Amino acid sequence: MSIKLSGWDDTIVALATPPGIGAIGVIRLSGTEAIQISNQLFPSKDLTQQSSHTLHFGYLKEGDKTLDEVVLSLYKAPRSYTGENTVEISCHGSPYIQQQIIGACIHRGARLAKPGEFTQRAFLNGKLDLTQAEAVADLIASNTSASHKTAINAIRGGFSAALKDVRDQLLQFSALIELELDFSEEDVEFADRTRLRNLIEEAQVKLAKLLHSFQLGNVIRNGISAAIIGKPNAGKSTLLNAFLNEDRAIVSEIAGTTRDTIEEVLNIDGILFRLIDTAGIRARSIDTIENAGILKSLQKMQQADLVLYLFDVNETTPGELETVRREMSVANIKCLFIANKIDGSNEEALKEKFEAADVTFIAAKTGLHLDTLKQEMVAQVLGGEVGAENVIVTNARHYHALQEVQKALTDVTDGMNNKLPGDLLALDIRRCLQYLGEITGEITNEDQLDYIFSKFCIGK
Amino acid sequence: MSIKLSGWDDTIVALATPPGIGAIGVIRLSGTEAIQISNQLFPSKDLTQQSSHTLHFGYLKEGDKTLDEVVLSLYKAPRSYTGENTVEISCHGSPYIQQQIIGACIHRGARLAKPGEFTQRAFLNGKLDLTQAEAVADLIASNTSASHKTAINAIRGGFSAALKDVRDQLLQFSALIELELDFSEEDVEFADRTRLRNLIEEAQVKLAKLLHSFQLGNVIRNGISAAIIGKPNAGKSTLLNAFLNEDRAIVSEIAGTTRDTIEEVLNIDGILFRLIDTAGIRARSIDTIENAGILKSLQKMQQADLVLYLFDVNETTPGELETVRREMSVANIKCLFIANKIDGSNEEALKEKFEAADVTFIAAKTGLHLDTLKQEMVAQVLGGEVGAENVIVTNARHYHALQEVQKALTDVTDGMNNKLPGDLLALDIRRCLQYLGEITGEITNEDQLDYIFSKFCIGK
Repeated sequence: MSIKLSGWDDTIVALATPPGIGAIGVIRLSGTEAIQISNQLFPSKDLTQQSSHTLHFGYLKEGDKTLDEVVLSLYKAPRSYTGENTVEISCHGSPYIQQQIIGACIHRGARLAKPGEFTQRAFLNGKLDLTQAEAVADLIASNTSASHKTAINAIRGGFSAALKDVRDQLLQFSALIELELDFSEEDVEFADRTRLRNLIEEAQVKLAKLLHSFQLGNVIRNGISAAIIGKPNAGKSTLLNAFLNEDRAIVSEIAGTTRDTIEEVLNIDGILFRLIDTAGIRARSIDTIENAGILKSLQKMQQADLVLYLFDVNETTPGELETVRREMSVANIKCLFIANKIDGSNEEALKEKFEAADVTFIAAKTGLHLDTLKQEMVAQVLGGEVGAENVIVTNARHYHALQEVQKALTDVTDGMNNKLPGDLLALDIRRCLQYLGEITGEITNEDQLDYIFSKFCIGK
Repeated sequence: MSIKLSGWDDTIVALATPPGIGAIGVIRLSGTEAIQISNQLFPSKDLTQQSSHTLHFGYLKEGDKTLDEVVLSLYKAPRSYTGENTVEISCHGSPYIQQQIIGACIHRGARLAKPGEFTQRAFLNGKLDLTQAEAVADLIASNTSASHKTAINAIRGGFSAALKDVRDQLLQFSALIELELDFSEEDVEFADRTRLRNLIEEAQVKLAKLLHSFQLGNVIRNGISAAIIGKPNAGKSTLLNAFLNEDRAIVSEIAGTTRDTIEEVLNIDGILFRLIDTAGIRARSIDTIENAGILKSLQKMQQADLVLYLFDVNETTPGELETVRREMSVANIKCLFIANKIDGSNEEALKEKFEAADVTFIAAKTGLHLDTLKQEMVAQVLGGEVGAENVIVTNARHYHALQEVQKALTDVTDGMNNKLPGDLLALDIRRCLQYLGEITGEITNEDQLDYIFSKFCIGK
């Protein structure tokens, strides 16, 4: 597939690496003139005579002025990310120098790239479909193993392949219906209605799975918010530290990781748990939870996707726990009950005492059963869905298009139930195919593309 | 020159681009195992069979897990920055992915690079001398055309070449003296003392120039602080705005420039003028400058490298200006006198009135003669030295070593005056050569190197 829109034959330039001081920076040039423009700034060699996929060391010069000592990476169309001639200039990591080089490229006829324009060109040149292009942005933003895995799977075409399955079934259905239309004069049903129903049902099952995966996709992409609450001295801070210290130790092993993002964020099996600031709840909630103030506290807790209710196993009666459990249930709060300070006690006896299949017993101070707790947290969030489905919908645009496909499919089924003629069924099927095509970008328009790519960073 | 220190035969890895989210990031691997380690993570191709200076697209995998879609740049020893086998992994600009890839490299036997270790290896492998290596850090930090030009000149070996001139003269001297020593029994002076004196003098002149350039070098590297002072309503804010608006327009033309650095910084002909916060002075100084409070105000002004004394040409008498001028002179403050609000007046008459060769006449509001003022500011700082000397000393370590060379040379001259025997003169000459060698790194030690490179960023 190759769609050519107007205004795409010029050459664009942008800094592709994060701004700021570093050892090196990379400036990317793409377009028909990319090699000529670089060549004018690179007296050491004639770049137009060099092969694709080669590296060239030398000085970048603007007239007499030496801009920098650089290495140029040369990619000739169509063997590049964008599918166009591309030169990547690897220069020293000084913002001043990068500005000078970009300025020199602009002076020679390039234009500053818009956000996502390199990827947009890759899409327009048929190097990626739209779901793959969108996964590029997800991949860059990925910060856990789960979000990374989902994005890289989508880049490799996993999501497109899953859609292709649905699409193939619908095309098969469509072909049968169209065949029937050709012979409509004769009023025969070539297309076996039972077979049609089966095709639609299969497609519906796949769609339902994809739609269902969106909740998980959201969790994977955005993480979930969790509130640790409990009475004073239940051990909330100890638990928080036990979580964070472990996590921090792993993260800070490699330099360059931003501290900000790990301050109150836990990464468990690739799912990000953001510990929302419930200082107020932590300090006050449980004192009031059995009082009149209970509603207000519950509202706060409801902002969290998950509440971790921590209690001191030695200071809490099964009756008290039961009260809390009931309140949580009434308020429809997803809650994990955690009995703390079990060290020194008989675990079996405790479990019996609290009659609790749904209580996790830990000792935050020593880290006892912390791993079990983490597994419970993940299970609570995912409901055991991890690994069950490889292809996961993470993108709201895809989700809404899939919903439309589902609606149109339901219309087809209803149509068959009402014995609608084949040409009307065919219309609904075309609607399905239209929505599927919008997801992968086979059917699209410039405004929509501009909107999608405007969310990318510059240089991508 | 190739110095091999212990512990330099392993393979190092680091992120070479600035940390943070961007379109792409580059991870650099260098060392004997760099290609093998990348090859283990790159199932698409056998990298060991590929030529140097080539680019390879494919997936980076750790076992079954796909880490990223990457392009590898392959450099084979000695044709690389470090002089070792080097692989640069161009991956997506996600800190999470970069961490995963670096982790995978470490898992396969690489070790996290220390700050500046790539450049240190380049030095140890004779790809750069020490002044060139140090210029790499300067180049990365360069933020004006002047600092950039100085650094790139040093990287290209300009400073080393200037030192080589001095060194060659001293070696010539040394050779003559040594020859004499061989025949010392015969008590003949082979080395013509006049010629020796000339050689030393020439070297001294070059040294003096280099030493002298350090003040300019400091200005180029660090910028200079300037305080705009004057009575209320002299037009200080208008001048500041006139400066900043022009400058800002230029800087913000290309995206990615940090706003912080331009807030109160002027770049005039590549020299950074940092307008230090003299709010206090601005508001009060001139009211008190003729009073008892004058000393305190002057002390504040003395913190600035340059004072811009602005006055309203219509509200100031030549006598008042004379008083200020005298005070500045007594306090030894470098000051530029600026007559503002000259629009509507006869310039010639004004110049006559203030008998002022040293006053710059402007109208800040309309920008009249702002360029002249800028030229004056640069001239005040550089004392007309710009362009007079291409090679500029910017590094304190070099400056101090050059001072030692100068001292030793003076000892040689003194020795000749005192008719010291040739072998003693030779000792002093060797001292000179020793200090010169320390600058370029021909003579050095591990501690000193570690110190120098520890100031680099990681990945360089």
